[in-house]
Amino acid sequence: MINNVREGIIFVLSGPSGGGKTTLAQRALERHSNLSFSVSYTTRIPREGEVDGKDYRFVSETEFGRMVKDNYFVEYAKVHNNYYGTPLEQFGMAKSTGIDLLLDIDVQGARQIRKNYSLAVLCFILPSSFEILRERLVERGSDNDAEINRRLSKVRQEMRDVHKYDYIIVNDDLDKTADTLSSIIVSARCEANRVSDIVWRKFFGEASKP
Amino acid sequence: MINNVREGIIFVLSGPSGGGKTTLAQRALERHSNLSFSVSYTTRIPREGEVDGKDYRFVSETEFGRMVKDNYFVEYAKVHNNYYGTPLEQFGMAKSTGIDLLLDIDVQGARQIRKNYSLAVLCFILPSSFEILRERLVERGSDNDAEINRRLSKVRQEMRDVHKYDYIIVNDDLDKTADTLSSIIVSARCEANRVSDIVWRKFFGEASKP
Repeated sequence: MINNVREGIIFVLSGPSGGGKTTLAQRALERHSNLSFSVSYTTRIPREGEVDGKDYRFVSETEFGRMVKDNYFVEYAKVHNNYYGTPLEQFGMAKSTGIDLLLDIDVQGARQIRKNYSLAVLCFILPSSFEILRERLVERGSDNDAEINRRLSKVRQEMRDVHKYDYIIVNDDLDKTADTLSSIIVSARCEANRVSDIVWRKFFGEASKP
Repeated sequence: MINNVREGIIFVLSGPSGGGKTTLAQRALERHSNLSFSVSYTTRIPREGEVDGKDYRFVSETEFGRMVKDNYFVEYAKVHNNYYGTPLEQFGMAKSTGIDLLLDIDVQGARQIRKNYSLAVLCFILPSSFEILRERLVERGSDNDAEINRRLSKVRQEMRDVHKYDYIIVNDDLDKTADTLSSIIVSARCEANRVSDIVWRKFFGEASKP
């Protein structure tokens, strides 16, 4: 099929809470048109300031279970006793419209995405050290000690898979890290395996075949 | 060996003359410290304005032949009846110091580099269309008709290998293209397969092992 629009790229952000993922995702969405955020479904209770439909879609466990049965999710996982799921519908849209999709999901989810979308771009974002991460989680004050320790031990576990990601961004300066993420988005958009056929046709004219 | 400096990255720019490679290389070198240009050796006659030791090192065919025998080159190739070679010495320096290396070489050379340096980042730069390329070569006035036709037929041939590159950059706006090249450099510097061990050690502290 001759098509001069490349497929939308799936960008995945993973990394510990407290690493700055949410802010970085916002910055990326402000800076790049043609990029849309995939809002995950979750059974967890909203944190202060979180908006239903913007940060997450908050649903009951019963609802979530039904959606799983209906194959509504590309991937879903249980994290810290709550379920999180990525809806499939936007993936089809990304493919046909060429609008890129930004996901904020954990390591289990990223693994599933990679399996189904080999060209997805996986980014792992983390603060400069384990100690700084601990401090941030304590300062944030949204978790008790047990919860913080659980999060930290999950980070240790997740870090084992960090080499499976495409990019690792150490967020020790928010502006600089936002620039780096932006660079990853720009460069992914001219990867040869996404654009070579399109570029070829544009270069030689529509009639030519790669 | 515990080493907290990643190896220098080999960035390769290829693409037809008239595509803007030389200017883009200059822009990249101005913008990025920690990036140095690999000056190729050639047996061709200097064009107007070209400086020995900056654009190329101009040598005789006898000298070039001796260097080939002495294994002085990472790769060398005959292009349009002239020899071009990339000196090996800077590659060792890039590896040990972590200073990235920018090469402006043709498709044959890029293929050799890829074979020996699988993590090299290969970028193919081309103007928006074959017609525009033809116009630019005519306007430049440095080649006669036969030479221009030879260059154009080489481009047709080279374009067959374009999908083997990592990135394809269509240079229809010099500033935008310079930004894109810059993004590729920034993103390559946080590719997981280059930095995951280093990041891991920095994150958990020197003593820990990936």
